[in-house]
Amino acid sequence: MLNHRTIFRILGLILITEGCFMWLGIPVALIFKEHDPWLFLLSGAITVAVGMLAYVPLRKTELQLNRRDGYVIVTGAWILFSLFGTLPFLLTGSIPGFTDAFFETISGFTTTGASILNNIEELSHAVLFWRSLIQWLGGMGIILLTLILLPFLGIGGMQLFSAEVPSPTPDKLHPHVKDTAKRLWLIYMVFTVSETLLLWAGEMNLYDAICHSLTTMATGGFSTKQASIAYWDSPYIHYVITVFMFFAGTNFTLAYFGMHGQFRKIWENEEFKWYIGFIGGFTLLVTIGLYFTSGGELEPAFRNSLFQVVSIITTTGYATADYMLWAPWIIVLILLLMFFGGSAGSTGGGPKIMRIVIMLKNSTQELKRMIHPNAVIPVRFNKMAVEQPIVTNVLAFITFYAIIVLISMAVMSVLGNDLDTSVGAVAATLGNIGPGIGKVGPALNFAEIHMAGKWYLSFLMLVGRLELFTVLVLFSPLFWKK
Amino acid sequence: MLNHRTIFRILGLILITEGCFMWLGIPVALIFKEHDPWLFLLSGAITVAVGMLAYVPLRKTELQLNRRDGYVIVTGAWILFSLFGTLPFLLTGSIPGFTDAFFETISGFTTTGASILNNIEELSHAVLFWRSLIQWLGGMGIILLTLILLPFLGIGGMQLFSAEVPSPTPDKLHPHVKDTAKRLWLIYMVFTVSETLLLWAGEMNLYDAICHSLTTMATGGFSTKQASIAYWDSPYIHYVITVFMFFAGTNFTLAYFGMHGQFRKIWENEEFKWYIGFIGGFTLLVTIGLYFTSGGELEPAFRNSLFQVVSIITTTGYATADYMLWAPWIIVLILLLMFFGGSAGSTGGGPKIMRIVIMLKNSTQELKRMIHPNAVIPVRFNKMAVEQPIVTNVLAFITFYAIIVLISMAVMSVLGNDLDTSVGAVAATLGNIGPGIGKVGPALNFAEIHMAGKWYLSFLMLVGRLELFTVLVLFSPLFWKK
Repeated sequence: MLNHRTIFRILGLILITEGCFMWLGIPVALIFKEHDPWLFLLSGAITVAVGMLAYVPLRKTELQLNRRDGYVIVTGAWILFSLFGTLPFLLTGSIPGFTDAFFETISGFTTTGASILNNIEELSHAVLFWRSLIQWLGGMGIILLTLILLPFLGIGGMQLFSAEVPSPTPDKLHPHVKDTAKRLWLIYMVFTVSETLLLWAGEMNLYDAICHSLTTMATGGFSTKQASIAYWDSPYIHYVITVFMFFAGTNFTLAYFGMHGQFRKIWENEEFKWYIGFIGGFTLLVTIGLYFTSGGELEPAFRNSLFQVVSIITTTGYATADYMLWAPWIIVLILLLMFFGGSAGSTGGGPKIMRIVIMLKNSTQELKRMIHPNAVIPVRFNKMAVEQPIVTNVLAFITFYAIIVLISMAVMSVLGNDLDTSVGAVAATLGNIGPGIGKVGPALNFAEIHMAGKWYLSFLMLVGRLELFTVLVLFSPLFWKK
Repeated sequence: MLNHRTIFRILGLILITEGCFMWLGIPVALIFKEHDPWLFLLSGAITVAVGMLAYVPLRKTELQLNRRDGYVIVTGAWILFSLFGTLPFLLTGSIPGFTDAFFETISGFTTTGASILNNIEELSHAVLFWRSLIQWLGGMGIILLTLILLPFLGIGGMQLFSAEVPSPTPDKLHPHVKDTAKRLWLIYMVFTVSETLLLWAGEMNLYDAICHSLTTMATGGFSTKQASIAYWDSPYIHYVITVFMFFAGTNFTLAYFGMHGQFRKIWENEEFKWYIGFIGGFTLLVTIGLYFTSGGELEPAFRNSLFQVVSIITTTGYATADYMLWAPWIIVLILLLMFFGGSAGSTGGGPKIMRIVIMLKNSTQELKRMIHPNAVIPVRFNKMAVEQPIVTNVLAFITFYAIIVLISMAVMSVLGNDLDTSVGAVAATLGNIGPGIGKVGPALNFAEIHMAGKWYLSFLMLVGRLELFTVLVLFSPLFWKK
């Protein structure tokens, strides 16, 4: 049985929060004297009002939460957030169609960064600020979700690191949870403010610095410029953003350890080592490729390679160059990288480094099992044997990921896209990256995708962002059985 | 410790067998008065002589076989077979270069059917007969391997059906094994002869009927015509071949049951139902696609769809049409189908229906496990709970398959192929299908692939054919440790 009262109460509270954040558009609109600030007041008011309708009558009911409620709340929250988040786009007329507005908004809240905008610069500062802010809110939501709620729901391997932070037990919310949430929020804020200041100290104005910091930390990738980061021809800006994308793709528990001076815990973290290893390996390959095919200098080749590799693996999706113009085999490397994703417990999407590593280890261990069939050969992660149910869950996750990619490729091709564009659009949305390959490469966008395709890709963004299972269980008949 | 004597003895015996089969080219050369039959005599003599060198001194040593020997023998057998199998091509000058000759031969023995020939019809009857025969021998080898040897080696899920046929225990070869092998050989012969007669009764001459039966039953797909089966504009020929491709892609144990009148066991076999289901589903989709895009008659659309779906799912690779000319989304469907493969215990390659189904079931069961975390929810196959180690092995297999595909795509693209061709070439060789998509589609061939690519794809054919693990364990340092 679902606890409808608890679900409505929490979703109501989430809408109220969203509405309040919309009002942040009012001062931006006032400062730049562009848009009617009343439209932001109205958007926020509608959202808060609807939230109140659900919350107020239930504010005194007892909170009762089981696993099923958790799944419904999480999926419901992202959908509701995206529905109401369209209001500033629609009311200001920045994005006229509802399909496009919803695509852009869910692309924001899921920290994807896929856009249907053909001319970003023609939008007002307030609207672009809201567009950046929804990514930041989505990123914060994901941190809280993956580090606090998902371990409670038992999603795929998240148990592996969550043991380190206080998390709720299956019966009730742990009293430490609020503290943890506060600390994570603080880390997220500190990173965002630091990046803002560093970008502002460089070639960016304060407005652009804020907007890009909001979308960097969320590994979102929305930019205020059509050319993305390539707009700033500045190595300093590129490196600063690279560093913060790297942070955003790291497990936030590690930052928590860093705050407490426990640096050994950071260096001993296995996922972190693999994360650095994958970035290093791919950057080396791409740098070699770019250096020899562009026949130029080493530093720009290295910088563009590092930037693009970090941007893709963390699923941010910023671009300093149009990689569709690079050698075909580098494009294939970029495409492969789209199936890695950030660290677990980061704002990054995709399958996640931890799952990729457990999958790889299980396969190499299987070879050993075939040579010594009677030996017990577990998968080890962070020097501990990973329990079999977690390995099975991780493999089931990867399987679902692959199946969804393959079926979605077929769906996108039926909607008239070529093979490259189909695989690119699917990898980029399911992995919450943003730009893909083919006709949805970094220099292009999703405007030309068929309307049905936009709705389908919106669904993929949601499924990918919520670690597949959270959404997929809702399609299981068993879920709705009494 | 490897039992070198046993390994040499068995590999020697295998070469002697191969040499004898080469001599079958002599009467063909004599009948058609084309090539120098002496070259076939010589090829066979060299192969038999080398085999004798290994076999004769060891013929009286005791047979000692452990798992490791098994892996070395199986991989060694396919490589040696392919090395010596090039002799008729090289000595007759039909294929001048060693790389091309090896590619064509291993493509034969692995029942892949990928070709580097630009003008098949210019080769002599004897050489084309040998080209067909190596596929048939490879197919027979695979039946014996998967139904008798692999369960002994513990390869991925083969245990699931092997319980039904007498198979060796881990300690010694069961006395029934020889009987089983004989029966399987008989079934294979009966199918081959039946198809020959049916094709001969139609528009094919006896020679073409024999050659095509040899390559149908092996799910090999080598044809004596450049245009493949499209050369015969005959619905009868198309349907006959479709039926026998279907048989060849079915678990041969089912034919064994059929021989004993146990038809219920066939209908109750779960993999068989899924096999029919997948063929039915894909045929329906492709038929609809072809009917509405070609705007023609229903029967040819249905026939071409059914033929192509069965040809790809069974990994045969014959063509009655160039599917690269079909609508892009149908090409995507064909590409997806390349990742299914035949039934376990058939001559078909690819991941196999059984593994795909276990993978799918494990994922849907995982959703149930997430809703009821404390319930034990096993994967069921043929109404029995599948043991966890088998599920893990199947998932590790699929993981390896996916990783090999992704890395190989990158390798092929570095060698200068576009994305479509890279993924097509990899799917078609690793899956032992033959033609892929892109520039290795059914109307084209592998002649233009870079020399390094030909060797790499040859390796993929071997790895795919031998169920991945058989070859991959040889790369594990643990395998070579004392």
